[in-house]
Order: sequence, then C-alpha cells, then structure tokens
Amino acid sequence: MASFAPVASERVKNHKPSIWVEFTTLAAECQAVNLGQGFPDSPAPKFVTDILKNISEHPELPACHQYTRGYGHPQLVGILAKMYSSLYGVNVNANDEILVTVGAYLALYYTILGWVNKGDEVLIIEPAYDCYYPQVKMAGGVPVPIVMSLPQDATSASQFTIDFDAMEKKINSKTKMLIINNPHNPTGKLFTREELEKLADIAKRHNLLVIADEVYEFHVWQKEDMIRFASLPGMYERTISIGSAGKAFSVTGWKLGWAVGPKNLLEPLKAIHQNCVFTCSTPTQKGIAEAFEADWPKFLSDPQNSYLATGLSSELKAKRDKLAKMLTDGNFRPIIPDAGYFMLADYSHLKTGQELKGHEDPADFIFSRWLCREKKLAVIPPTAFYSEPEMKNKNDHLVRLCYFKKDETLEAAEKILKELGHH
Amino acid sequence: MASFAPVASERVKNHKPSIWVEFTTLAAECQAVNLGQGFPDSPAPKFVTDILKNISEHPELPACHQYTRGYGHPQLVGILAKMYSSLYGVNVNANDEILVTVGAYLALYYTILGWVNKGDEVLIIEPAYDCYYPQVKMAGGVPVPIVMSLPQDATSASQFTIDFDAMEKKINSKTKMLIINNPHNPTGKLFTREELEKLADIAKRHNLLVIADEVYEFHVWQKEDMIRFASLPGMYERTISIGSAGKAFSVTGWKLGWAVGPKNLLEPLKAIHQNCVFTCSTPTQKGIAEAFEADWPKFLSDPQNSYLATGLSSELKAKRDKLAKMLTDGNFRPIIPDAGYFMLADYSHLKTGQELKGHEDPADFIFSRWLCREKKLAVIPPTAFYSEPEMKNKNDHLVRLCYFKKDETLEAAEKILKELGHH
Ligand SMILES: Cc1ncc(COP(=O)(O)O)c(C=O)c1O
Ligand SMILES: Cc1ncc(COP(=O)(O)O)c(C=O)c1O
Repeated sequence: MASFAPVASERVKNHKPSIWVEFTTLAAECQAVNLGQGFPDSPAPKFVTDILKNISEHPELPACHQYTRGYGHPQLVGILAKMYSSLYGVNVNANDEILVTVGAYLALYYTILGWVNKGDEVLIIEPAYDCYYPQVKMAGGVPVPIVMSLPQDATSASQFTIDFDAMEKKINSKTKMLIINNPHNPTGKLFTREELEKLADIAKRHNLLVIADEVYEFHVWQKEDMIRFASLPGMYERTISIGSAGKAFSVTGWKLGWAVGPKNLLEPLKAIHQNCVFTCSTPTQKGIAEAFEADWPKFLSDPQNSYLATGLSSELKAKRDKLAKMLTDGNFRPIIPDAGYFMLADYSHLKTGQELKGHEDPADFIFSRWLCREKKLAVIPPTAFYSEPEMKNKNDHLVRLCYFKKDETLEAAEKILKELGHH
Repeated sequence: MASFAPVASERVKNHKPSIWVEFTTLAAECQAVNLGQGFPDSPAPKFVTDILKNISEHPELPACHQYTRGYGHPQLVGILAKMYSSLYGVNVNANDEILVTVGAYLALYYTILGWVNKGDEVLIIEPAYDCYYPQVKMAGGVPVPIVMSLPQDATSASQFTIDFDAMEKKINSKTKMLIINNPHNPTGKLFTREELEKLADIAKRHNLLVIADEVYEFHVWQKEDMIRFASLPGMYERTISIGSAGKAFSVTGWKLGWAVGPKNLLEPLKAIHQNCVFTCSTPTQKGIAEAFEADWPKFLSDPQNSYLATGLSSELKAKRDKLAKMLTDGNFRPIIPDAGYFMLADYSHLKTGQELKGHEDPADFIFSRWLCREKKLAVIPPTAFYSEPEMKNKNDHLVRLCYFKKDETLEAAEKILKELGHH
C-alpha cells in the first residue's frame, strides 16, 4: 500500500484526534464505571421510543421511511417554529428560519464553515465544548479564547465569571463571531440575564454574529430560569441558535439538531447542507416532531406532566444531589451545577493519585487516567476544554463527571468514591 | 434585519440551489404523479422496519438510543467488514477501513473535501449524479467532465460509452481523482468488466485516487453482474468505495451510508467527520446492521430468499418492464436500464409539449415543467447531470423517470402516458 500515497487536502492537515477517542476507549478497556462521556445510561423516555415504534409499524408510508424535505421534515420544522416563536418572542418561520441537522454538532459545523473566512476571529468563552476550536480552525478562522475565572474554593458553577472589560479588549476589526454556550458544558453554569445582556451589548456595539449553543436549554431546574439569547431585545437578528433533540429527549444516539435564525443568517448553512448531507433521517425526525407535539402543550399549561418542563429536570436534580454527596464523601469538592448534566469537582484534596504530576500532559489528564486504570472510574479531564497552555495549567485540579446515569452506575461509582475517601 | 448584513464565507459564494428543490416543489404544487425524485413509494421491506420496531422496544439499552462509536456502530462495521471482505476479495478491517456516514452523500462530501485541494482536477463521467460537481467546486477543485456518448436511436443503457483515448487526453499532472458511479445514475448503465479494467488501467498509470460510488450495487438483475471496482487487481489500495443503506434496503429516509477503503485513504475523511457530525444515528445503524446480518448468509447460500440477492431485483425488474411498456405506448422511446431504479426516455417523438423550446433553459427542462404542470406527471430533466452547455444542448431530448413506485403510482402514470400517446 505504501506505493500509493496521495497528499490529503490542506484542511485536514492539523487534525488531532479528539479526547473522546482516548477516554472512551480507555473506559471500555478498563471496564470502568463510566461517568465520562455525556450521555444517559438510564432508560430513554418510553413515550419517545414508543413513537419510533409506531413509525416502524408503517413501512408503507414514505413520510416515515423515505427521503423527506432537505431542510427539515415538514412536521418537525412546523412544531419547532411554533415552540421557538413562543420561547424567543419573535415570529419564527418554519420554512425559512429553521434548518434541521445531524445533531447540534452539524449545525455548529455549518454555522462556522458558512460564516467564518480565513483570518476571521471568533470569540470562544472557555472552558469550551471541544468542537468549536477545531471547527473554527478548519474554516481558516482564528479562535480567540475568553477565559472565565473561578475563585479558589468555589462551590457553585455560578461562580464562573467573564471579565467583560478584558473580553472587549480582545475585539478588533477582524472579530466576526461570538460563541455562547448556555447552559454551559463542562461547568454546568447557567448564565444570568445580566450576564447575557452584557454579552448582547458587546455583540451589538461590535456588530458580531452570535452562535447560541443552547443544547441543554431544557436541563434547568425551573423552566423560567433559562434565558434564550435570541429572546433578548434586538438579538434574534444576529443570532443563530442551536438545539439538540438528542439532549432534549435524552436520546443522544438519535443525532438530530437544528439551527434557528433569520433567513439571511441561515442561507450559508443551507448551501453547505446541500453539498454535505442534503437531508436528515426521516423516521427519527418524525419521531422527534411527534414527541414535541405531545409535550409542548403540557410545557405551556400543564408543566407537572411535561417531560421538558419538569420530568427531565426532576430526574436530573436528584442525580445531581446524589453525585454531589458521593463526591464530598470521597474527599472531592464538587462545584454544584445550575443546569445540564455535568459536574466539575476538585480532586486536589485527595490523598492518593496526586503523585504522578509533572509529566508533559496536564495534571487532570494524568489523574483521570490513573482513576480509570487503577480505580475503575472514568471521568473527563476538563483542561481538554481550554486552548492555552497557561490556562490548562491554572485549571488542572478538576475532573468533569456526567451524572445522568442509572442508579446502578451511580452506586458503583459511590463504592469507588467511598474507598477513595478513606485514604 | 437589513441593518445586520455580515459577509458569508468564500466557500458558499457560488452556491446554486439543486434541481431537486425546483422539481420536488413543482411536483407537490401540481399534485403530479411523481416519477421524479429517486425513492420508492412502495412499502419498505417489513423485515427491516420490524428490526427498528424491536430496537424501539428497548429504551433501556444505550446501544440502541445513545451515542455510539464515532466511526460507526461496532455491530454495523462488523457486518460490513465481513460483507466487503467477501465482495472485494480483500481483508477489510472493521475498525480501520470503514467509516459510517449520513448517507452516501456525506461519504462523498468527506472524500472530496478530504482529498481535493485548490486546483486539483477531478475526472467526472457525465451525465453524473449532481452532487459531485458542487462538492469538487466547494473543495476548491476543478471538475473535468468525461462525457459518455450515446447513439441517436439507442434502446439500451449499455450503449452509453466512454471514449477512453479522449479521456486520457484530459489527464495531466494536476489530475488527482476519478469518480466512477456504477450502476450509473441517471442512465441505468452497468459498467462491464472490460470497461472497468480500462478505467483501472488509467487510474494505475496516472496514479489516480478513485471514488467508486456503488450505491446501487444490489440493484442488478443478477448478483454476479455487479463488478465492484475495489475487487479488480490492485484497485483496493487506491479506491474509496461508497455504499448506501437507504438504497440497499429501500429506506432512503434512514440516510446511512459508508466509505470503505484502506486506512490511509480513510484518514482525511475521519478528520472531517470528527468536526462535522462526529457520530451517526444509533437506532438506524443498529437496524441496518441487523438487516445485513439477517440477509447476508442468504445472499451467499440461499439467494432465492435474500432481499439483496433477488427480492429487490425481482421487484425492480417487473417495474422496469412495466414502465418501459407504458412509455412505448405513450410514444416515448425508453432506454432500457441494466440496473438501478432510473430509466431515461426520449420524448422527442411526441406530438405535444415540444412547442416551447428556444427558451434559455435546456429543452428537457421546459418539457419537464410542461409535463408536470399540464399533464401532472413529474420527471427529472437529465441535462441537470451535465456541466457543459454544449453537452446540455446535445442531450436535451431525454427525461429521467424513477420506476421504484407502487402499482397505483405506475397505473396513474400509465393513464397520463396513454393519453399522451394518442396525440
Ligand atoms: C455544548 C454542546 N454542544 C453541542 C453538542 C452536540 O450535540 P449533538 O449530540 O446534538 O450533536 C454537545 C454534546 O455533548 C454539547 O455538550
Ligand atoms: C449515484 C448516487 N450517489 C449517492 C446518492 C446519495 O445516497 P444517500 O441517500 O445514501 O445519501 C444517490 C442518491 O440518489 C445516488 O443516486
């Protein structure tokens, strides 16, 4: 095979494998209790999988199993338009202002590739979900990190804060875009109205395009706590909001998401879509459409019976509290999240697992590998979510854990943590 | 909104909406009998949808509804490796030599974006499936058409031929890639071993990377008739073969496909995948895995009971014969396909619908619009599959029809065609 060695395209030249590859493989190899990757191992909601079952019972219907409209199944864009019109307080047009994609991931890719040109600068609030950076690089853009700070002995994710003056100093004529992730992965921070208004003010004054990655929009303890960026005055017209069905209905494997925004902002995304996947999966789109159609009326007027308003969050909140307690018992210091399904915890007070520092990888990588190999507990090292070496060094005392796990998994983790606490 | 008008990225600058948008919309507006877009409106095979039903009955299993392995569900790459090892006569490694994608479409996108650099030339055999050209352009490459010729009164798709000497004259030091689509859309041609060997010889002598788009590999009348490019001596090492579950199992809406090839050839594709969708839909991947697992042993040793070996093709052949007869009765001259689910037909002997020529669009566009609006029969104008104006003009006497339609649809088309034949 060595005889045929063509040269790959420039755009893949600087590719690095993502951390998910290393840590997912390691967790499997060690047969560890997995609180690493962000997906529920508790059952998916039955009313959602039952809808897919019903769709599977209709092989004869093209609307269930054959190609559907390229920019989104008519039924899905219909209900999404209705929901987001209400949630943003604007009139979202189903045909022009929504693009259905293969997970939020693809919506992010389209938005960044569609708008970012060689040399354009993109503000990324760090720590940041790890796909923004390589996507901006692949587009030829320049990622500009805005690093949040956290007090030494923080106990709540709300203590992560942005220094807005420092942020504004990083803006120049090349700055094109700001990426906001709220609720925030990996911290679990929920941005307040005041913080979002400050970001909106900056976006307006510097004429920035905003990506609002709101995939955890339903993972808040009270539905009123979630302030969608596009609902702020004047922001809809400059914002591409991104959502995820996999997150909303706890079926991460269904891989459906969407971008919502004014027609002119979505046009470059649609252009790439036409060359890239052209159309998304029909049965799962129809399934998600029906799930929203069933839940949305309850979300509005019968929240106690709505999965998105209370079912999901009450399940999550109980698991969050359980994990926080387990971590404390294990001598970790949890940073309690306001939303989402991740929690950070400071491991630096542990008596074991610290002795390996000083390698070339950040300390949390060394610790996480040790925890997985020696103690059979898989977590994610959050320095993977920082781009600058100094910031990795400054924030290497934490691990990220996913608490959306079934009781058996949490109990298995509890044993390991208790054992650790005894040292 | 006019106040905020950012500039989109260079890569979407030359975007044109695909013909599917115009002709699918028109067919729906006119409530026409639709033989246009390429999908079955007859029922999907029940054994396949039953598998998805079974998967839907297991909300508790992460392997059914949560994120799966990024490069492909372990069960799916497992069976694909087994199948293609046998079909190509090489040892295809499940972990390194298969990448699962969102339809063949995304596999094509990855391959072209991963390998084609600014200025690289790509040989495209025309008429050609309409996504290759814009994908090559988006990558910064130069599409070089190799136009097949067809005798004036052709009656069989096998009469489409490549002038190999003329083809070779178009090759220079910038030529990087050759795209072969076999069985061929829109003609229905099945390339012979002799033709494929000539292409292989050219690929070898000029050191070309080959994309073998074989999405209709199971849509042949006899399974032995399909010669996969990667099975030719020495070709596996320079070929990325592309397949489609939507086509194989007649569930186009499931949108799953794959690229198969040596590890080094797939690496750039995987790099883009990691930034683009990261992972594909779990329930449909598992469903397709189980469908192949059920059918493959029969394909090998009990073909009479295999959907892929005979079920699909016997259904298709009957429909092909039916449409050919209907077209002849309607005064069209069908060009009988060797494979696939499309048929071209010469409409120039009709007494009506010809009077509108001379507009700026090619005649087949004018005719197809007329047929849809006035006669309520939707077809596709095949000049959409040529890139050069002279070639569009030379080949504007045909329409493309999809015959994978249920009996009611074909019968409704029959009435319209009979009526046309009476003029
Ligand atoms: C912040 C954030 N954005 C986007 C995604 C991707 O979501 P999807 O699975 O819908 O592609 C994730 C998944 O973990 C995420 O955490
Ligand atoms: C030749 C050819 N290649 C690729 C595709 C795309 O297939 P998929 O639906 O699997 O993306 C099609 C669909 O019509 C096709 O005809």
